[in-house]
Amino acid sequence: MAAQQHVSCGRCLSCVPDISNSMQLASYAGFDFVAMPIVHPRFQREFVEGKAKDRVAAFARSDLLLPSQDWSALVVGKLSEWLQVDAENTVVRQNSQVALMQELNYAAHLSLPAVLVPLNNINCVNLARCLYSHMQGHSNHQVWIHVPIQAPGTMVDDVVENPVSFDETSKDNEPWHWWNTLRRACNHHKRLGIALEATLDLPSQDVIDRWMGEPVKCAIFSTSLFLTNKKGFPVLSKAHQSLVVQLFRLDVQMMIKGTNRHPDKGIKAYQQYMEHLYQSQPPLGGVDAFAKGYEDYLQCPLQPLSDNLESQTYEIFEKDPVKYTRYQEAVYKALMDKVPEAQKASTKTIIMVLGAGRGPLVTASLKAAEQAERSVHVYAVEKNPNAAVTLFTLKEDKWGDLVTVVLTDMREWEAPVKADIIVSELLGSFGDNELSPECLDGAQPFLKDDCISIPCKYTSYLSPLMSHKLYNEVKLCKEKDKNPEAHFETPYVVRLQNVSVLDKPQSVFTFTHPAKPPTDNQRYKHLTFDIKEDAELHGFAGYFDTVLYGDIMLSTEPSTYSEGMFSWFPIFFPLKTPIHLNANSKVTVHFWRNVKSRNVWYEWSLTEPVATPIHNINGQSYTISL
Amino acid sequence: MAAQQHVSCGRCLSCVPDISNSMQLASYAGFDFVAMPIVHPRFQREFVEGKAKDRVAAFARSDLLLPSQDWSALVVGKLSEWLQVDAENTVVRQNSQVALMQELNYAAHLSLPAVLVPLNNINCVNLARCLYSHMQGHSNHQVWIHVPIQAPGTMVDDVVENPVSFDETSKDNEPWHWWNTLRRACNHHKRLGIALEATLDLPSQDVIDRWMGEPVKCAIFSTSLFLTNKKGFPVLSKAHQSLVVQLFRLDVQMMIKGTNRHPDKGIKAYQQYMEHLYQSQPPLGGVDAFAKGYEDYLQCPLQPLSDNLESQTYEIFEKDPVKYTRYQEAVYKALMDKVPEAQKASTKTIIMVLGAGRGPLVTASLKAAEQAERSVHVYAVEKNPNAAVTLFTLKEDKWGDLVTVVLTDMREWEAPVKADIIVSELLGSFGDNELSPECLDGAQPFLKDDCISIPCKYTSYLSPLMSHKLYNEVKLCKEKDKNPEAHFETPYVVRLQNVSVLDKPQSVFTFTHPAKPPTDNQRYKHLTFDIKEDAELHGFAGYFDTVLYGDIMLSTEPSTYSEGMFSWFPIFFPLKTPIHLNANSKVTVHFWRNVKSRNVWYEWSLTEPVATPIHNINGQSYTISL
Ligand SMILES: C[S@@+](CC[C@H](N)C(=O)[O-])C[C@H]1O[C@@H](n2cnc3c(N)ncnc32)[C@H](O)[C@@H]1O
Ligand SMILES: C[S@@+](CC[C@H](N)C(=O)[O-])C[C@H]1O[C@@H](n2cnc3c(N)ncnc32)[C@H](O)[C@@H]1O
Repeated sequence: MAAQQHVSCGRCLSCVPDISNSMQLASYAGFDFVAMPIVHPRFQREFVEGKAKDRVAAFARSDLLLPSQDWSALVVGKLSEWLQVDAENTVVRQNSQVALMQELNYAAHLSLPAVLVPLNNINCVNLARCLYSHMQGHSNHQVWIHVPIQAPGTMVDDVVENPVSFDETSKDNEPWHWWNTLRRACNHHKRLGIALEATLDLPSQDVIDRWMGEPVKCAIFSTSLFLTNKKGFPVLSKAHQSLVVQLFRLDVQMMIKGTNRHPDKGIKAYQQYMEHLYQSQPPLGGVDAFAKGYEDYLQCPLQPLSDNLESQTYEIFEKDPVKYTRYQEAVYKALMDKVPEAQKASTKTIIMVLGAGRGPLVTASLKAAEQAERSVHVYAVEKNPNAAVTLFTLKEDKWGDLVTVVLTDMREWEAPVKADIIVSELLGSFGDNELSPECLDGAQPFLKDDCISIPCKYTSYLSPLMSHKLYNEVKLCKEKDKNPEAHFETPYVVRLQNVSVLDKPQSVFTFTHPAKPPTDNQRYKHLTFDIKEDAELHGFAGYFDTVLYGDIMLSTEPSTYSEGMFSWFPIFFPLKTPIHLNANSKVTVHFWRNVKSRNVWYEWSLTEPVATPIHNINGQSYTISL
Repeated sequence: MAAQQHVSCGRCLSCVPDISNSMQLASYAGFDFVAMPIVHPRFQREFVEGKAKDRVAAFARSDLLLPSQDWSALVVGKLSEWLQVDAENTVVRQNSQVALMQELNYAAHLSLPAVLVPLNNINCVNLARCLYSHMQGHSNHQVWIHVPIQAPGTMVDDVVENPVSFDETSKDNEPWHWWNTLRRACNHHKRLGIALEATLDLPSQDVIDRWMGEPVKCAIFSTSLFLTNKKGFPVLSKAHQSLVVQLFRLDVQMMIKGTNRHPDKGIKAYQQYMEHLYQSQPPLGGVDAFAKGYEDYLQCPLQPLSDNLESQTYEIFEKDPVKYTRYQEAVYKALMDKVPEAQKASTKTIIMVLGAGRGPLVTASLKAAEQAERSVHVYAVEKNPNAAVTLFTLKEDKWGDLVTVVLTDMREWEAPVKADIIVSELLGSFGDNELSPECLDGAQPFLKDDCISIPCKYTSYLSPLMSHKLYNEVKLCKEKDKNPEAHFETPYVVRLQNVSVLDKPQSVFTFTHPAKPPTDNQRYKHLTFDIKEDAELHGFAGYFDTVLYGDIMLSTEPSTYSEGMFSWFPIFFPLKTPIHLNANSKVTVHFWRNVKSRNVWYEWSLTEPVATPIHNINGQSYTISL
């Protein structure tokens, strides 16, 4: 999919005397949308008591001022600043609440795409109640919680004597905690988003990374944050620029607020600067380009053993620029090690490609043999009759006598000879989750004693993850015929984007081949992770790496990622309930790989910071068929 | 939404020796897609016994011959003609079945968009089983059942002595019955469609209309049906042309089969002729243009009483070119009748617009008064506070003292004066279903004894309906939180297109205003319809008409439709289970309108040809809130 061509940038206004004029000016200055108060800031409303109580008149501007497409595409509504829905004073609270609901309902009446809700402190549970109630009603608009990226008063140098009481105070002052309190009260509602306002000082990278796991929809930059460059144009500091670039990755919309501080250049200059930063990003390459448009999109893991892959799926595999080259190198080295130069004329090596698909590993093996000047015969073993059509055709048209095509399940094959080298790629996003261990164990009877397996080893990895977005995607997955929590007991293949990884990955399960009997492919492991900042835990990201032969590897684990490879996205194991994590605490997760005669499945649970139910007990929601 | 610009027309081939060449020729001749055998017709396959049984080779052409986008966008697969899945002979049947599954799986492997399945007689239950099993599996493609529009042998003149035995025979020979048998066995599967082949003789219009209630996705015209015009080009007879135009209305794709019989013109000429017919259709007008893109799309009926309508909804209402003119005429006539010329100077008529929305009926009333030269004062009564913002603004800017805006529910209003004329439009697609009766009863206290109500009467209508499409749309509506059949106990507002109306509408419930107390808005009625042709009954279409004043009417009932009006689409009451109807039989339906203190709902059931459960008993799945 093509990358977006242009940054979406809005203008945030605090007072709009003439709406069509303001819209025109903003559009002329290159802005894509406008944020403005839903109700005129000076129109006083008193519902509970006071002299304005029984006034009969329009409380807002008429909807006739703009065509409805404009309201619904170009205008973000701002709630009044004076609302104090969480005030202690009953009259103030009740009055604010009625006014709040009036504004929210009017925003829904106009079909505005989003409403900006200012959030200034941790006392927000009544605000949360009003918003949650409204979102559960008939409205459709987004609710953007407007928070600063850190509290204006926060300074890193402010070390306080008593760390315990400091911790307490500090949480109440942290905007992320304001947001988290509100979001938890609203049950992680899918229409909640964040309008993140940049502050002059920026918080640590850990805190910024945590925001990147939140549903940031909009970023607000005040004109007062801008510096002036030599030519007199507004520009941002390096730190702010880096923040902007991180935000672009989440496809966030930008918003400029405050008066123009570069009047000779026009307000246009701020929008143009954002566009400039957007256009200065390096073009997407490798997996980023390949995955464009699939970010945070949940896919059910393939089951290439029980299902037959489609032609399209093979076609995509075969475009990977890294995987087949590495396999070819591995076969080359294995051939060189196995057959000494002196014996190369007299030896024919039997290579079996197990799970040959449409043949790319057959081709790679033949190329490796040619390069190594070793003579081989390749058996291409594949159980998918549709892919076999391609293999038979390739044999006919290209490979000839070098290759024998066998349409069978490798676990049932009565092979006419034994193998010197087996080559397979039966790996899933979590390594063993496409049942490579079980399939290759089934090939054991037709391996020579010194048979080399490519790959010879693979290992899975896990990291704890925060992602409001993925949690909501899972929630949406409900299928009618399944038990209502089944979708939280299933892993998903997903290109991770709007997530925050809370600790570095640790290894989980390892398998080696050829396996020494008696083989047991059941596994159990627990891992403990260190959590630095307060966060919400929504699940775990899974990766894998594999040793093909010698030092030739493939990896999706971020620290050893095989640059450019796009055959695998990470896997995501969700949790049914988001778990609140405190800074400097631990997360202990338990993972099981269970095997029965007809299927394999994972189970998982936490014991720290709290015990959770074991997910997917007995494979009740998700199994992989043998 | 814009109309489609161009007809989609494919070329149906029976043998394709060189696929990319055939694709190129077809595309060069202007065709959008190609239908071709999935497996080479002469590649013999024997699975059960016979000499080809253990042959090891490719059974189809390789997927590498086309890029996967082409397979999935441009190629419709044809099943082999020799398959006899319903043969009595076990070997023939089993062999056919294995070959059928192989072809279907290969079609899925290639991600073909659709597969053409020939259906030649009524013995098709094993074929249905195979298709149903396949569609419930992992495939995604459409299954197009290829049937002639009538059996080739059928002749209207073939009158047979014994009508009973004739009836029996005739059913077995009717392609619609072949299709209906298969479709019922497949449980009305949503991916089933029809490829309808035109025959030289065409059936009666009743039979054609019945096909229009079926999911016809593709229409096949053999080159042998074409005549030759004076210039030597292929053209269709008037009867065939009229069929084509009816098919266009369902957005059907066309397909040309058979050898070119106008070789000097090229096969292109057939495609061009179809395109010519497509372009010769008159441009869409009125409600057709308005509803383009919404055909057969289910909407939940609005509840303007308990919910507040949105700005966009009012904006759409207000564009209706008919409704407000009729209201204006009605108010004009009422004023002329009420206030004699002699008294016009001394009389001020009190008009109350009840449910004024954003004011169009207020404007219509003022215009009528001006035209009638009668002096009036208008009360604009509206309970939606958001719409009231517009009313207050209009009073400020335009209406001034002529109008008083009152933000209240009419049922609770303590009016300062009594009304001479009340004007309201509280009607839904089924007339009373937006609770106009209950609202206007609530206005009774502030009406003068001789008060005129505009409208003074409205009546609902029902017709029995066949529509595979709508049945499937309802099936898809499942909501997780509701009981699994709730979606079949709810009416839907829908622009009817892929439907067949089985008898003309009959009136159901009538309400008149002002109502004479004691009023009772509960109703019960049963209706009996005559069914001419065999059909499946999927539910009922509902309409209404209303008398505004004197002879001024609005109607959505087809025989009296107010040309050009688009404020209302019909309503659809579904049935949980499709009911098979025999020709010359009767359908008796019972309808209830029930009223409780907080809501109103409909219940419905059949007693002929079979009794069904009463749908929506106690309003368990759908009520309208008071
Ligand atoms: C992930 S694909 C790899 C295909 C190809 N080697 C490539 O790298 O592009 C795995 C293939 O193994 C096949 N396969 C899986 N389990 C198998 C088994 N038990 N016996 C034979 N083939 C198997 C699948 O049908 C599929 O074609
Ligand atoms: C179908 S709309 C018609 C609006 C407008 N008269 C027009 O024709 O465009 C019905 C209107 O009646 C209002 N309404 C419905 N029930 C009402 C009630 N009981 N009291 C006051 N207004 C009501 C609704 O809010 C809505 O604005």
